[in-house]
Amino acid sequence: PASKRARVESPKPREQWVCPGSMVSKRFVNPIRKLVDTLIIKPNEKKEMIPLSIGDPSVFGNFQPDDVVRKAMVDAVMSTKNDGYAKSTGYPQAREAIARKYTTEHSPLTADDIVIASGCSGALDLAIGAIADEGDNILIPAPGFSLYKTLASAKGILTRSYQCLPEHNWEADLAQMAALIDHRTRAIIVTNPSNPCGSNFTLEHVKAILQVASDYKVPIIADEIYADMVYEGKHTAVASLKSDVPILTCGGLAKRWLVPGWRCGWVCINDRNDVFKGEVSTALVNLSQLLLGACTLVQAALPAILNNTPLRFYSETLSKLKIAADMCYEALNKIPGLKPVRAQGAMYLMCEIKIEEFKDIENEQDFVERLIAEQSVFPLPAGVFEAPNYFRIVITVPEEKITEAMSRIAEFCALHHK
Amino acid sequence: PASKRARVESPKPREQWVCPGSMVSKRFVNPIRKLVDTLIIKPNEKKEMIPLSIGDPSVFGNFQPDDVVRKAMVDAVMSTKNDGYAKSTGYPQAREAIARKYTTEHSPLTADDIVIASGCSGALDLAIGAIADEGDNILIPAPGFSLYKTLASAKGILTRSYQCLPEHNWEADLAQMAALIDHRTRAIIVTNPSNPCGSNFTLEHVKAILQVASDYKVPIIADEIYADMVYEGKHTAVASLKSDVPILTCGGLAKRWLVPGWRCGWVCINDRNDVFKGEVSTALVNLSQLLLGACTLVQAALPAILNNTPLRFYSETLSKLKIAADMCYEALNKIPGLKPVRAQGAMYLMCEIKIEEFKDIENEQDFVERLIAEQSVFPLPAGVFEAPNYFRIVITVPEEKITEAMSRIAEFCALHHK
Ligand SMILES: Cc1ncc(COP(=O)(O)O)c(C=O)c1O
Ligand SMILES: Cc1ncc(COP(=O)(O)O)c(C=O)c1O
Repeated sequence: PASKRARVESPKPREQWVCPGSMVSKRFVNPIRKLVDTLIIKPNEKKEMIPLSIGDPSVFGNFQPDDVVRKAMVDAVMSTKNDGYAKSTGYPQAREAIARKYTTEHSPLTADDIVIASGCSGALDLAIGAIADEGDNILIPAPGFSLYKTLASAKGILTRSYQCLPEHNWEADLAQMAALIDHRTRAIIVTNPSNPCGSNFTLEHVKAILQVASDYKVPIIADEIYADMVYEGKHTAVASLKSDVPILTCGGLAKRWLVPGWRCGWVCINDRNDVFKGEVSTALVNLSQLLLGACTLVQAALPAILNNTPLRFYSETLSKLKIAADMCYEALNKIPGLKPVRAQGAMYLMCEIKIEEFKDIENEQDFVERLIAEQSVFPLPAGVFEAPNYFRIVITVPEEKITEAMSRIAEFCALHHK
Repeated sequence: PASKRARVESPKPREQWVCPGSMVSKRFVNPIRKLVDTLIIKPNEKKEMIPLSIGDPSVFGNFQPDDVVRKAMVDAVMSTKNDGYAKSTGYPQAREAIARKYTTEHSPLTADDIVIASGCSGALDLAIGAIADEGDNILIPAPGFSLYKTLASAKGILTRSYQCLPEHNWEADLAQMAALIDHRTRAIIVTNPSNPCGSNFTLEHVKAILQVASDYKVPIIADEIYADMVYEGKHTAVASLKSDVPILTCGGLAKRWLVPGWRCGWVCINDRNDVFKGEVSTALVNLSQLLLGACTLVQAALPAILNNTPLRFYSETLSKLKIAADMCYEALNKIPGLKPVRAQGAMYLMCEIKIEEFKDIENEQDFVERLIAEQSVFPLPAGVFEAPNYFRIVITVPEEKITEAMSRIAEFCALHHK
């Protein structure tokens, strides 16, 4: 019963189905995916596989969220008030709780300064998408978390890498950072504590980064998903320092509360002198409407999670991380051919492979492939983080597995060392 | 301690902060947002507000998810196995459950054909983003759900509207649909049952749509978030019919299971003759890696939700919807100046305003603003759905509120009718 409203003649039916996948789906860079597709993973069948590659603290069962967290979720489910749509920026009470948790003297936050998203990944996507367009560029750390490049490249935003220096506790090379800035630089991403480095910047270094951002008038996107997850020194949130640099701080429940699968993250808008107001802040709100962020049940549980998780939980997590980090460092440091860098935060440790000291190892990917083949131990080749000749170890692995993995790595290196 | 690796001279520090929000965040079209920003909502203080505008069945408490659904969620929370990252396409057992639920003779599905996303919105975003690029176009229904245009415009994808005809139970004008197709048309979006129309296509009409898609060799994106939510006639899933048209079917938990806030949706890849294979299917998987879809707890609960929700729950929901739809239709049909269209599915009913029969009403927005001001009743002006001179009523409102709202609308129309 199709009426005849059509004004135009229909084109000829096509001869063939033409369904190419979109260019966008092809053009973006996903280094981890590329690695997984090319890495040869053929473990030694005689040895049980020990994966040190997955940045997920829940894999082995030794890092569990606190009971308070589970109970808050059960309450949220059993209440009948949390099933409907939330505002695109999130539940007011959840935004309020986040604002209270992260407010500081120099970065006072209210619920209006918070946008909730699907994980810290979603928060980073909002922050990058609000501040930069196709053809603009953002500065990212190298070594650094590969998602920045993936998200940016999907939007046609360019990335420029500033070096973080292992010999200086992975501090940023600030002269180089400054040299990368041009008139299309829209933001500097600062990851502290860092994945993959496990580093935690000193107060002085955070100040120095802010100085560069202030001099060149480039806002900061602070990825602080590992905020306070520090077992050496103290964590300094970039926004907590006095400065005129407007900052979008991204965070979430994934790491500190050990529930990465729950997909709850947030952007805290730390504006200064209304630089963001009316523009970047509005952009964030607009973009949040495209998809609607996190599950309302998790949002409903958020105030209890942030307010009631016992301090003991945090400190126990940190002690376990510290023990693991020390074990890995001490063990790797004794192995000829390897040079681990001490970690202070997050849940990773980087280790340099002195390729020239080995008889028959080409690069870090080769090292890892052979380590898997001979010893069934799987660290991540850190080329994916722009750290060639390094591998990254996840330290949330149970102690006995770490011990076993370290001794197997030692055996492997002994065999291949010149 | 910044080393001096920089090769280039740093540019001059900028004089001023320049932080425009991104163009993308500004360019996309969000008709509902625009309406909310311009609509004058000043209710009559003497009358309690009755909102008939929000497509969220959970607002009034009269539509609650089944106990099985809540229990499945509590189990998922209390298990300690669902806190980690899922694969970007979703938990295998959740994908398996979706595949089983929607598999049919002519569209056999396996877990590999399912991509889980953050709500049906996320599913639509994946489907549109996998199949079309900037400058391409997709066909969308008018009246139709405004998110299609919002998502497409954010990607620079153009939309062309085919008319759905109220006098033919909102069937698509197929001649016009065909006339819109050109060499850059990448998909036809078909919404059945429809938001905002509340329509449910006959088997014959679904076949006729498939014939156009087949003739012109344009794939279909079927938005079937309201699948089986039909209280007159029977729902025909587009993919269930024999055809050579490859179809991406989008669905989710939001409506049928009454939990829109939980943000769980999915794309079912109903490929035909490998048209999607290697291209569109890969694009979906690639895009799913950008953000990681739905909360793992909801994913873990999904098999129980899909398999164990009692039939009684579905039939009770449908009876309540039918009663409400009939009440609205009967009441509106008696009001001079209005012409409601019978609804058969989803949770909406559309009503034409015969503007020329009113003394002093300019258009549907004017009608609604005055209705709010005088009677505190708030249907949605359907201009946002490209249906000028219509308003949309949400029928998940409790009976007594419907009765009251209808009599207030009658009073309002009596006053303004010529
Ligand atoms: C530095 C960093 N930022 C962001 C994320 C993403 O967090 P989420 O799982 O909340 O998306 C990760 C996850 O590994 C990370 O390491
Ligand atoms: C036709 C249609 N498709 C998709 C959606 C979005 O569903 P979700 O809430 O799962 O994102 C809606 C929501 O109202 C809808 O009406």
